[in-house]
Amino acid sequence: MLEGFAASMSSLIDTTENPRVLKLKDAPIKNKVGVVTGGGSGHKPAFIGYIGKNLCDAVAVGEIFSSPPAQMFYDAFKAADAGSGVACLYGNYAGDNMNVAMAIEMAKDDGIVVKTVVANDDVPSAPKDRRENRRGVAGEVLMWKVGGARAAMGGSLDEVINAAQKAIDNTRSVGIGLSPCTIPEVGHPNFQIEAGKMEVGIGHHGEPGMEVADLEPARKMAQRMIDIIIPDLPFVEKDDVVVLISGLGSTPPSELFIFFNDVKRILDEKKISVFKSYIGNYFTSLEMCGITLTMMKVDDELKKCIAYPCESWGLTQF
Amino acid sequence: MLEGFAASMSSLIDTTENPRVLKLKDAPIKNKVGVVTGGGSGHKPAFIGYIGKNLCDAVAVGEIFSSPPAQMFYDAFKAADAGSGVACLYGNYAGDNMNVAMAIEMAKDDGIVVKTVVANDDVPSAPKDRRENRRGVAGEVLMWKVGGARAAMGGSLDEVINAAQKAIDNTRSVGIGLSPCTIPEVGHPNFQIEAGKMEVGIGHHGEPGMEVADLEPARKMAQRMIDIIIPDLPFVEKDDVVVLISGLGSTPPSELFIFFNDVKRILDEKKISVFKSYIGNYFTSLEMCGITLTMMKVDDELKKCIAYPCESWGLTQF
Repeated sequence: MLEGFAASMSSLIDTTENPRVLKLKDAPIKNKVGVVTGGGSGHKPAFIGYIGKNLCDAVAVGEIFSSPPAQMFYDAFKAADAGSGVACLYGNYAGDNMNVAMAIEMAKDDGIVVKTVVANDDVPSAPKDRRENRRGVAGEVLMWKVGGARAAMGGSLDEVINAAQKAIDNTRSVGIGLSPCTIPEVGHPNFQIEAGKMEVGIGHHGEPGMEVADLEPARKMAQRMIDIIIPDLPFVEKDDVVVLISGLGSTPPSELFIFFNDVKRILDEKKISVFKSYIGNYFTSLEMCGITLTMMKVDDELKKCIAYPCESWGLTQF
Repeated sequence: MLEGFAASMSSLIDTTENPRVLKLKDAPIKNKVGVVTGGGSGHKPAFIGYIGKNLCDAVAVGEIFSSPPAQMFYDAFKAADAGSGVACLYGNYAGDNMNVAMAIEMAKDDGIVVKTVVANDDVPSAPKDRRENRRGVAGEVLMWKVGGARAAMGGSLDEVINAAQKAIDNTRSVGIGLSPCTIPEVGHPNFQIEAGKMEVGIGHHGEPGMEVADLEPARKMAQRMIDIIIPDLPFVEKDDVVVLISGLGSTPPSELFIFFNDVKRILDEKKISVFKSYIGNYFTSLEMCGITLTMMKVDDELKKCIAYPCESWGLTQF
C-alpha cells in the first residue's frame, strides 16, 4: 500500500530508509519547523494523505487501527527536522501517547527538539471535565491544516505549537455510525450495529458511543450532533466556524451534502457563520458507514491558516 | 443535496434558475468555449464535483442513476455559453443520448452551437467492433480534464471537441464489483454479488459484467483488468499513459493503492510509462464496493491538458 502510494504521488512524496515512514519530497525544509504526525492505518486520507506542501512533512505509519512503534515516530522526526524543531501533532490514543513520548526521548539524544499537540476533539469519548481523556478524531485534519500553514508561514516551533493547540482547543467533533467495518486480518466486523439503528458518538475504531438510537433522517441527526458539540465549547452567536463533515468510508458523498445543508440551516438560525466548509472523506474508518461533524471556532490567525494554500493527496486548495 | 453542495462550494459554484443545474460562479466566461456535462446522480464526484475552474462550466443533474431531462441539459448549455459555443462531454447512455439531442435542438433556436463527445471507454460493455455501444465510465473524468483544460487554454469549439474526442478515443476502462449498492428510493440492492465472488466488467449502475469469478487478490485482479484493456486500444511498449483508479464507493483507499502498486509493476514490465496517476474516488456508484481501472494513452497535447491546473470539489491540482 505504501509503495503504491509513494509511486502514485512521486512528484510530492518520498519514501525513507524506514519503510513505515513517508515524507514530503522537499523535507526537511530549511528554516521551517517540521510537522509530523502518525497513527494506525485504515483512516485514509489520514494520515499519509496529509503529507504535503504546507501540511505535514513526515508521517509514521502503523498497522491498521494500531499505533506506529516509537522507532517510526523517531524516524519521522528525523525526516522532518531541519534544525528548527518538530511539531508532532497527533491524536489522543494510549499507544500513540506512549510511542511519541519514547520517540521524543530518542530524538533528544540527536539534539532534535520535539513539541506536541494532542488532539482531543471527540466530545462523546469523555465528559467535559475530563477533556484530557477524549480521543482525537476528524478535528486532527484542521489541526494539521493550521499547524502546517503556520509552519509554512515561517512560524517558530512555539508559534506552530500554539496555533495547532488553539486549533484543537477550538474544535469539537462527534460521529454517528450506521454500519461496522472489517479489519482485513480479522475477516469479520469487530462490532455490530443493528439494521435500523445508529451508534451515536462512535469512535474511529468502532469504540462504543454514548447511545444506540433508532435511525433518523439527516436533519434530525444534524440537530442531535450540533446539540452535542455546540454547548461543549460553547459555540455562540456571531462565532465564525470551519465545518468539516467526513464520511466514515462507505457513506455516499451525496448524503454528506444533504447533511451539511441541514447543519448550515441550524447554524444560520443560531447566527453562527460558516467561514469555510470541508465536505468529503477526510478521516475514515475503512468501509464503515457513518458521518462525523467537526466544528472549529476561528479567529483571524486560524482563518489565515485555514485559507492558506496546500497540496496533498487528501487536501489540496488554492 | 444540491443546496448543500452549492452552499459548501459557494466561492466556486452558483445555483441557476433551474434547481437541477449548477454552474461555475464565473460562467459563462467571455471568449471561452463552455464545457457542459450531466448525468444521473449517485456517482460523486461525477458529475457536479467536476464543475470548476478549467473543468466543466455547468452540469445537468438527474435523479439517482437516471438521465437529466432535456430541459436540464438545455439550461446547462445556456448557463455555460458565452457565444463561443458549448462542448457537451457526456457518457453513452440511451437516456442521456436522447435528452442531449433534444436539448441541442432547443439550443439551436437560441443560436447556441453545441457539439458533443460521447464517452464510451467501458471495454466490457460491448465488443470492440461495436465500440459505439460501449458505455462511458470513469474515463469521462479524463475527458472533462482534457476538454476543460483545452477550453481554458483558449481553444475553439472544434479544438476542444477534438481534444476531448482524442482523450476518450485513447482511453479504456474496466470495473470489478465486489458488493452491490442500494438506490435509496428502492430500499434494497438492485442486484446481488455473492460473498467470495466478484463481477468482472460491472457497469456503474450494477449492469452485469462479462463474468462472475472467484474473489482474487489485488495482483490477480490487476493482471486480469490490464489483460482486458491493454489489447483493446492497444497500449504498447513506450506508450505514456495516465492511470485513473477509482473506488466504486465503499472500497477503502488503502486497497486502491495496493491495486495501483500491482498495476504499476505490470506496466513497468511492459515498458509502458505512467505519466500521471489519479487514485481515489473519482466516479462512484453509491456505496458499491469495487474498483475501476482506466488508462489513457497521452501525446503532447493530452499531457499538457492533464498537467493543466484545475479546481473543483472532485479534482484540484496545482
